[in-house]
Formats: sequence, structure tokens, C-alpha cells
Amino acid sequence: MKALQYRTVGAEPEVVDVPDPEPGPGQLLLKVTAAGVCHSDIAVMSWPAEQLPFPLPLTLGHEGVGTVAALGPGATGFEVGDAVAVYGPWGCGSCHMCAQGKENYCLRAAELGIRPPGLGAPGAIAEYLLVDNPRHLVPLGVLDPVRAAPLTDAGLTPYHAIKISLPKLLPGSTAVVIGTGGLGHVAIQLLRAMTAARVVALDLTEEKLALARAVGAHETVLSGASAAASVRELTNGRGAEVVLDFVGAPPTTTAAGAMAAVEGDVTIVGLGGGTLPVGFGALPYEASVTSPYWGTRAELIEVLDLARAGSVDVHVETYTMDEAPRAYQRLHDGLVNGRAVILPNG
Amino acid sequence: MKALQYRTVGAEPEVVDVPDPEPGPGQLLLKVTAAGVCHSDIAVMSWPAEQLPFPLPLTLGHEGVGTVAALGPGATGFEVGDAVAVYGPWGCGSCHMCAQGKENYCLRAAELGIRPPGLGAPGAIAEYLLVDNPRHLVPLGVLDPVRAAPLTDAGLTPYHAIKISLPKLLPGSTAVVIGTGGLGHVAIQLLRAMTAARVVALDLTEEKLALARAVGAHETVLSGASAAASVRELTNGRGAEVVLDFVGAPPTTTAAGAMAAVEGDVTIVGLGGGTLPVGFGALPYEASVTSPYWGTRAELIEVLDLARAGSVDVHVETYTMDEAPRAYQRLHDGLVNGRAVILPNG
Amino acid sequence: MKALQYRTVGAEPEVVDVPDPEPGPGQLLLKVTAAGVCHSDIAVMSWPAEQLPFPLPLTLGHEGVGTVAALGPGATGFEVGDAVAVYGPWGCGSCHMCAQGKENYCLRAAELGIRPPGLGAPGAIAEYLLVDNPRHLVPLGVLDPVRAAPLTDAGLTPYHAIKISLPKLLPGSTAVVIGTGGLGHVAIQLLRAMTAARVVALDLTEEKLALARAVGAHETVLSGASAAASVRELTNGRGAEVVLDFVGAPPTTTAAGAMAAVEGDVTIVGLGGGTLPVGFGALPYEASVTSPYWGTRAELIEVLDLARAGSVDVHVETYTMDEAPRAYQRLHDGLVNGRAVILPNG
Amino acid sequence: MKALQYRTVGAEPEVVDVPDPEPGPGQLLLKVTAAGVCHSDIAVMSWPAEQLPFPLPLTLGHEGVGTVAALGPGATGFEVGDAVAVYGPWGCGSCHMCAQGKENYCLRAAELGIRPPGLGAPGAIAEYLLVDNPRHLVPLGVLDPVRAAPLTDAGLTPYHAIKISLPKLLPGSTAVVIGTGGLGHVAIQLLRAMTAARVVALDLTEEKLALARAVGAHETVLSGASAAASVRELTNGRGAEVVLDFVGAPPTTTAAGAMAAVEGDVTIVGLGGGTLPVGFGALPYEASVTSPYWGTRAELIEVLDLARAGSVDVHVETYTMDEAPRAYQRLHDGLVNGRAVILPNG
Repeated sequence: MKALQYRTVGAEPEVVDVPDPEPGPGQLLLKVTAAGVCHSDIAVMSWPAEQLPFPLPLTLGHEGVGTVAALGPGATGFEVGDAVAVYGPWGCGSCHMCAQGKENYCLRAAELGIRPPGLGAPGAIAEYLLVDNPRHLVPLGVLDPVRAAPLTDAGLTPYHAIKISLPKLLPGSTAVVIGTGGLGHVAIQLLRAMTAARVVALDLTEEKLALARAVGAHETVLSGASAAASVRELTNGRGAEVVLDFVGAPPTTTAAGAMAAVEGDVTIVGLGGGTLPVGFGALPYEASVTSPYWGTRAELIEVLDLARAGSVDVHVETYTMDEAPRAYQRLHDGLVNGRAVILPNG
Repeated sequence: MKALQYRTVGAEPEVVDVPDPEPGPGQLLLKVTAAGVCHSDIAVMSWPAEQLPFPLPLTLGHEGVGTVAALGPGATGFEVGDAVAVYGPWGCGSCHMCAQGKENYCLRAAELGIRPPGLGAPGAIAEYLLVDNPRHLVPLGVLDPVRAAPLTDAGLTPYHAIKISLPKLLPGSTAVVIGTGGLGHVAIQLLRAMTAARVVALDLTEEKLALARAVGAHETVLSGASAAASVRELTNGRGAEVVLDFVGAPPTTTAAGAMAAVEGDVTIVGLGGGTLPVGFGALPYEASVTSPYWGTRAELIEVLDLARAGSVDVHVETYTMDEAPRAYQRLHDGLVNGRAVILPNG
Repeated sequence: MKALQYRTVGAEPEVVDVPDPEPGPGQLLLKVTAAGVCHSDIAVMSWPAEQLPFPLPLTLGHEGVGTVAALGPGATGFEVGDAVAVYGPWGCGSCHMCAQGKENYCLRAAELGIRPPGLGAPGAIAEYLLVDNPRHLVPLGVLDPVRAAPLTDAGLTPYHAIKISLPKLLPGSTAVVIGTGGLGHVAIQLLRAMTAARVVALDLTEEKLALARAVGAHETVLSGASAAASVRELTNGRGAEVVLDFVGAPPTTTAAGAMAAVEGDVTIVGLGGGTLPVGFGALPYEASVTSPYWGTRAELIEVLDLARAGSVDVHVETYTMDEAPRAYQRLHDGLVNGRAVILPNG
Repeated sequence: MKALQYRTVGAEPEVVDVPDPEPGPGQLLLKVTAAGVCHSDIAVMSWPAEQLPFPLPLTLGHEGVGTVAALGPGATGFEVGDAVAVYGPWGCGSCHMCAQGKENYCLRAAELGIRPPGLGAPGAIAEYLLVDNPRHLVPLGVLDPVRAAPLTDAGLTPYHAIKISLPKLLPGSTAVVIGTGGLGHVAIQLLRAMTAARVVALDLTEEKLALARAVGAHETVLSGASAAASVRELTNGRGAEVVLDFVGAPPTTTAAGAMAAVEGDVTIVGLGGGTLPVGFGALPYEASVTSPYWGTRAELIEVLDLARAGSVDVHVETYTMDEAPRAYQRLHDGLVNGRAVILPNG
């Protein structure tokens, strides 16, 4: 079958022919319908060899949806033809974290060498994808698979970040979304659907802020030196109960701290290399800063339910398998509007 | 192998020879070290045929610990010889409940015909037990398997009931344990280990109350018409923030409601057929009444951690396989002190 | 000043002249702008003398908004002319409940003889209202006082009921509102603004269900023998994660239990005299039943914030002071559409 | 009356004669029984004039207990002679924070110039203390006032820090206490009384670690370069679910981060000037870092309940009023064992 592989450190990914995978005991084989292209793949492909935590070649793609093509011996719960989404952050399934469905925080994944598809295990940008266990699949139902694919990461990651702070997102509260791109524009929709908080979006251009308003932001603020002051002004000096930073670069993490309220949550999702120092007097009292990773199994079910209810929608542009390298190129160049999705069997 | 089976509606369970089970794909075979004998088995054996939700014969035993004897194809995470406890309330593993490890509340178990070992699937009072999935096993570590076996139900069930109410079990609060037998005497220990609440135990005899004090109850009250008044007096009229009723019979559920505080939790665990009516004015404001079932996967891990720390201990009396019918007889006659445990390979 | 008083057990309330109140130390005097007329007043006026927990005459009105007319010595935090809403369920201010702002559950109110305005203390259907403490006032800001008055009870009570269950109102969940009148039609709006749950409304007529849809219900079901089955069907057999019963009569409490999901919350708000029995096997596993009362100080602030954001609106019809007895008559006769509000200085 | 005042920036505090205070409307006058001496006073006295947020002279003492000596007009809830503890972090009483009893996070205190006794308002190291409102008093009951005084800060502050993390302090979890002095040795006792977590204490000397074990620490580790590695080893590589840093200096905040678990809480209580940077990859996934301040009104009630139950005890050394300056000197020199308490009327 065809697969998009990252084969040599520093090189571009390329479409190659690889053997068709076959499902072993308890495994399932998916015929991939759609697979999302994500910034974190580009980050991984920029790492030097010694930092790479898995061997090459690697089939890319950690946002995948497909139909069940075959079940290995003992695999249950699905039938051939079922449309499903793949839960990506695979764990051992048994530790205290996995026992709660928090496989993204599996206590034993590193020790056991378990890695997500497309980030160590063979990924979804291929005609077929091997899934190790039925628990890593969620039925798609009536959802359009192309728009659903990005929900498994670009939807699930902001959803998880928001869910951490739900008890603080009461009426009268303010949530700031820094960075209104792939994850951020989903976060705005999620906040509007799930909470009564006022949503303030921050980004670098008026064009992006217009998009933020179009997907539901109540207020928008241009990033920059005065952004934190603007948020304080919008909140009568109080600051935002929740700040979600989808950029995570030095200027945004600093701004995030400066606009947080007493007892506020600052959640740094972006991989921009910024940090925010916490200590007595450094931030408002009991402002809490964290940096989560992806989401849980139950949360993916909830995100898909939300999409099914029409409350969240990801803008996508689609590519054939052969165009996949170009999709990565365009993403790298900042040309993708929303999310790029590969249709390996399209 | 030998197995204790319930073979005919209304008959006594009997020790019979059955074929040795063999693990299929993804399954594991346990050599059973110890298996608990539970009141709910006796309840099940008292049901008429039309109420029985599974066919006979049934190998009994839903509290099991053992060592891994064999792994089916594709079964991972354990090695032959590992000492493990079995999580009993099996579910589908994939629904929104199971995705959080709440397999006790699986949304699809009934539809898929999934039942716990000993309560539909072949149980643990046998030389070998087939376990459908590695996720249903928890490593025992250094725990004494004989004393650990009852923790999988008699430990997990009160643990889950307590965990529901943990946010209310603050310093200054009162927890009442009604019924200080198998589950109740564990509940007292759990409350003392996990909370700063004052623990009040209720039972019918001074002898049982002496045991309750020995395992940690701060106060004891004889059951009866004035028990609720006694609890109100002990709490300056406020009532108990949490009432755990391990009897669940009409007098105890009524008493439980009468001793609850405003915003208190009344949790009916016992299968005694009692109910407590809730409505405006029927109970103190916002007293909440519920009746849970068993516990979650993560909670079983936590209970075993607690036992490993020496914070909870179950009094057991042991029986060989051939004595198993007598163990049920003694339990039925109210003669078991603590928990009866069968050693099928002992 | 003029005040509407309930003077003789069983008689109609009447407009009388009473001395103008004067604020003592720490107290405030409000010039009342608007005061809501509530079913619970009618319930109180139906009680026999021996059940009445306070002496007559009583000035009615427990939903009040006004402007600060005078401050007693030492009263701080407000200035003459400030527009405010009154938090009604007054407590001692110091006990463990009051220390969290849960004055509705004050541990000492009964002992100290503290009662809400209009339900023991002189109420808001008068030209002036004495407020015992600045903490019982919330600034109105830009809110229309006439529409804000009912928010202090008809808004706060459903808000509190919903807040109990917020963690269960996730995407994919279902909330049922039984009774779409005064409180119920607010509950629908609150659920839509604060959660992503699907909202199902139940009532007796198609006309009321049309109103429910107009204020945001996703689905509507006619009350009756098959209502619970309809809710199960709408939820693929699962039932509703949250059922809010604003009627609380025997048929609705029974239906509420029959449509609850495993781990669901059934909250009985209505004073219709119905109860729902809870015990093992009586309801789905761990369904929890409770009956709360009014709400907390912080929650009133949150409700007003929500109204200020335009997310909740109460339909009102207004009456002058002299028409106040007629408002009660119309409410009693079921003729009030939304909420009747008296304008004592209008 | 006599009072210990900080009168000139940089000078030692001195005992002076000041006029007896008189309670105005709603206020209460306490005859002070005992008042704690706290490190934060020493910190405040080290600040330059321009940093001092209040004018001098200032009567010191923010940990006070006493008996009610007089009530101002309209002050209710207490009688002359009642033994009470003072809740120190006074707020406005009305904002969204104060409405939940979180006066430590009052949204309007700065704007309104409200400051705690001994930290802006006249403090408790005086024969009499003026308390602005009955809500700032908690009945002592049978508690020894001398040992109770430090509970209002040295007890309440660690209690609040622990309560933030209670949901993570499950059986099987580990809590690290860095710094086992005044607050830390209370924290160890609180953790043991309220949770089943394993408690690991860190400090600089074996002598201090012996004290930590005496008050309940399960394990102790010497501070230093390898401390974090020791904690990881004790936790099978997992790290601590909760790290409470009562030092807060650069080496301890760094160590705190290095020993945190995935999803762990790092809470920096100490004013040692250290910070811990948070960002993607900087700490384990979703480790959360915060720095709280003091505690809530309800929490003070809970701490006193815990002391009444015998679960927490503060080691104290006592001083007369005239010896008060020496108590500060000894605290400054690190010579106080436990907590220094002044007896102004002793």
C-alpha cells in the first residue's frame, strides 16, 4: 500500500510503497478515509537524530479516521465496514492512568515502548492503519469523516484543556484564547458551546480576529505589549479566569500570566518554547499554570458528540495521497487555512 | 479441574469436575489462589428461575486472586507466575463509561451479554479462571492473596461508596456506617484512613459495636428507634454529612434519612430491599440519596494500594475447595466471622 | 408606607399602611422598585395557623430589587441611589454553611429565628424594605430592575439546581426539564447558556411545549404515561443524565426516576408533594435524588451576570401596588404568563 | 493599652501605650488571649518605605485569639466572654470571592483599603483588638487558646494548600512537604489526618527530619541535589502527586518541579523568592503550579474542628507582652522551636 513516510532525519516526507499490514490477535485493520496533517509532525521532523525517540522510517499521521477493514483473532466490538475515529495517545491500558482512560498520561508507555500512530507507531497517512486494540476506536456515526479526522487531535487537545478549567468557567467569567489557528479556533467554538464564559480571542492580525469573531469570540484583542492591559480593562481589572495559550512562545506565555485573575488557570498548549514562572508574588494569588497533552478516551467520545450536535466544526482543505508532501510544505509555510487533511484512498 | 457450581435453581452449590479452560486470543488463564464467598451469591441462588439472568450451571466466585498460568495469543502486560487480583464488573471496554474505567456501569454490557465472573461468566471458585482481558487484572505485589481476595468486592464496594462523598468528608464532618459486617467493617477502616471525618457505627449488638470500635469507629450507636436521634445529638442537631447503609432494609434506610444533614449524602449499598423516598420536605434540604454498585478499575488499584500501606485489613476464614459448600452454608446461617475465602488449589 | 400584608390565616393579602422602617446599625433601607409574586407565597397562605412558622401580619415578597434609600450607622459598601437585588435566604452569616455563602442552608437560622424577607421578615411588596446586612445585596448594574426581580428566586433556584449537576452536563448528555413554567422556562435558558447538553422539555400541553422550544429546548415531550419511554428512546435507552422536576407531584417524580440514566441526577425542585423512593434496584445504578432549596450568594451574582450577558430573560407582567392582591389572585388561578411583578413605587 | 508596634521603617518593633479601641456599629472588641509571631511580619519589616503598603505605626499580630470584651451597636452572634479565633484575611464581604468566604481573595480589598489586622489594620499583639465584623470570628470552644492562635495562619495556610489538592491525594499517592518548620510540620499532620497519601518530608538536617517523622512523615529525605531523584525512586519513577513547598526559595522550587508527577500539583507557599517555570516540556505533562495565600473562612472553621479532634497540634513557646520584641528577635535568628506566641494579658 501507499504510505507517507518520514525516512531520513531532516528530509521531506515521501510517498512510498510498503507491505499491507495484517491484524494480529485483538488488533483491527482500518482502511483510512482521512488523516490530518499537524504542526507537531513538522516539529518532530525538525529534531536532530539524537532527539528522535523512535527509529525511521516512520509512517506519519496521528489524526486518523477510517472504516474497519479486518479484525484480528479475538478482536471484538466492531464489524467490517464500521466508520471509526482513532484515539491516538495509546497507553498500556492497565495502569492507574489508563484505568481511567487517561492513556495520554500512561505511566508505563515509555517503559513498554508504546507510541501513538504517526508518532512512533505506523501512522494514518497510508491506505491502511493497524490499530492495536478496539478500545482505541470510537464510532463516527453520521459524522463526515473528512471533517472528523482533525477532531482527534485539533479537537481533542483544546477540549481537554478546557475541561480542566470547566469549574471556573461560570457565568461572569472570562476565557482568553491566545492564537486562533487550528486548535484555537476550535477552542473558541468549544467554549461557546460548553460554557457561559465571555470569550476573548487574541491574535496578531485583524484578519485572524475577524475569523475568531465569526466562530464565536465575544471580544478580540490584538496581540502585543498592551494585550494584557486590554484584557484587564475588559474585566474591570480582574483578569481572565482562564487563559488558553495555543502559541506557547515567550511573548504569549508572559502575556498569559499578566492577564490571569486571582485563582485563574493559565494553560499552555502551544509548543512555542515559552515558559511562565510561578512563585509567591510572581502571579496573582493562586493563579495556576499547567501544560497538558492531548486528551482522554472519554473526552474523544465527548468531542465527537459535540460535533454530531453541530457545535464544533473544523475548516479543512483536502489532499490526495500523492499531494500529501505538498500539504506538509504548505503547512510549514503557513499557507494552510484551518486544517489540511489527506484522503489516502480518495 | 474442580469448580464449585450452582447447577439447579434452588439447590445447594456443589463441587464438580469441569474441563480445564484454555485462553483464546487476548485472554489469560489464572490459577486461582483464593476466592471470596459473598452474600450476593446467596441472594442470586434464592431467585426463581425466571428471574435468573444467566443459564445454569454457573461456576461461582466473583472475588478472585490468582497467578497467571497462561496467556492467550496477543495477551500482553503480564507474565506467567504474576500474582494478580481480578476486577469483577466486566464491561465492553469501549463505551463512554468503560472509557473512564467505570465498567461497573458499562452502557452495553446487557446488550452484549457481558457478565462478571461468578455472576454469569464462569467464576473464581475453581482451580482455574479464564479472564477475558488483561485490563481486568491488577498486580497484587506483596499483598497476601488470601486477605486480598475479598478486597475486590468487599473492599472495592465500600471504597467506591466512600469516594462518591469524599468532598463532604471534611474535618468536622460525621460519617455513619450502618451495618458493621463484611463491607461495613472495611468501610470504617477506609473512612479512618482516607478522611478526618468522625466515624459513627450502628449495629444491632454490643458485640458488633465492640468490633466496630476495634477497627476504628469513634462512636457507636445501637440500631433501633432512637438511633437517628442519637446521631443528631452527637452532631449538635446537624446530622451526618454522609450515611452509608450496608444493610439497606426498610428500618435502616428510614433511619439513614432521619440522621442525614442538610446537603448530606445517603448511600444505600445493602440489598435489604428498603427504599428512602426523596422529595421537597421529605429530607433535610439537598440531602442526596443514591445506591451505587461495585466500583471502578482505578478504584480497585487504589484499594489494593491502601491494603499494601496497611490501612485496611479484612478478617478472613479459609476453606479448601471441598469445604466450599460448607462455607456457603455457614455464611447463609450467619456464622462467618468477617469473610469466608476458598483456596481452590490450597 | 404601603405594604401588601398577609394578616389573617386563610384571608386574602391586603394593601395596608404601615410605619416607614428605619435602618439600624449595619442595616440598609431600600426603596423597592420591583417585587416578584411567587407560588410559594400562595402555598404559605394555604397553611393552617399551627403550621405557620412566623406570626402575622406578614409583609409579602421574597423577590425584591430596589435602590438604596438610606444606610444605618456602620453600613458600608453601598451608596444612596445604588440599584440592587436582594439575596433572600438570609442566614446567620457565620456558621460553616454561611461562611461559604450558602445562607440558604444556614445551620443556625431556625435557632436564631432568622427568616427571609417576605417569608417571616417584612418583605419586598412594600414601598420600602429593610435589609439586615449589606452582604444580602448584589449590585444590579445595567439590568432592568423589573425583569431582574424574579431572578432572585425564579432565576436563582433553577440555577442552583443546575449547578449541582454541572459536571454531568457534558457534551453528549441529556437534561430533562419537567414543567416549563416560571422556573422551568428559566432552567431551559440556563442549560442552553451554560452547557452543551441536549435539553428535553416535558409539559402537559403543546402550547407550553412550543414556548419551551422558543426559549431553547432541543426536544419536547408531552407529559404522561409514555414520557419516560420517549426520553429513553431519545437517548438510545440510556436515559437522561440530569432530570430537573419543577413540578414535584407524584406523577412527575415517578416519571423522573423512570427516565434517569445510570449515575444520573434527579433533582426535585417543585413543591407538588411527590417523592421518589431510592434503594438498591429501585433506580438505575447510582442515580442520585435530591431536593434543594433556593441558592447561594455567589450564585445570585452569577445569575445576574448571566442576565447581563443576555443569556436569560424572564417574561413578566407588571402590577401597581394597589393591584397586588389581583396579581396573587391571577397567579392562584393559573392566569399569570411568566412572572407577576409588583411595582410598589411605580 | 499596651501594643507591640512597628513604628519606623527598619527599626525593631516596640511596646508602646496606645488608646483603648472602642467598637463602632457592627464591630466587636476582643481582649486578646494569645497572638502568634510570624515570619511574614519579619519580611514586612525588611521592606523599604516605598514598598510598604500601609502607613506606620502598625500594631503587629495577624494570628489572634481572645474573648469578646464588648460589642458595638448592632453587632450580633456573640456574647461578652465568648472565646474566639480571628479570621485574618479580611475582605469586603460582598464580592463574588467574599460571597464564597474566600475573603483572602477579595476582589475589592485593595480598592477599598481593607487590610488584615497586623498587616495594615491594628493587630493582635495588644491588650485589645478591634474586629470589624462578627463574620471574622470563629468560636474556639474547648480549644486551648494559646495553641489555637497559630492555627489561624500557620494552620490555615497549609490547610488551604492541601485542600486545593485533596482530589489528587488518593490511596497510592505521595505528598512531599518541603520545609518542616512552622507551617510544614502542621502540613504533615494535616496530610496524615485528612488523606491516605504517603507523606515524604524534606529538610536540611537530620534533626528536622526526626521531628518530621515524629509528627507523622512516612519517609524523609535530606534536601539537596539528589532529593528529587530520591523522591522519584521512592515512587517507582512516578514522582509525587502533590509537592508543597513551604520554603519557596530557588533551590526548593526547582526541586519541587523535578519531583512532580504527571498531573501532579506543585504548590509554592514559602516566600523565599523562588519561581518554577511552566511550559510544554518544562515539567511532566499537566503538572500544575500555583502559589496560594492564606485560606477561607470555612477552612478556618475546619482547621479548628481538626484541632478539637486532636488531629493537629502546634508546638508553641510563650512570651509576655514585654518580651514580645525578644520573640521577634529569636524568630529572626532562627531560634524559635515551633511557633512563638505572645500573651498580651498574660
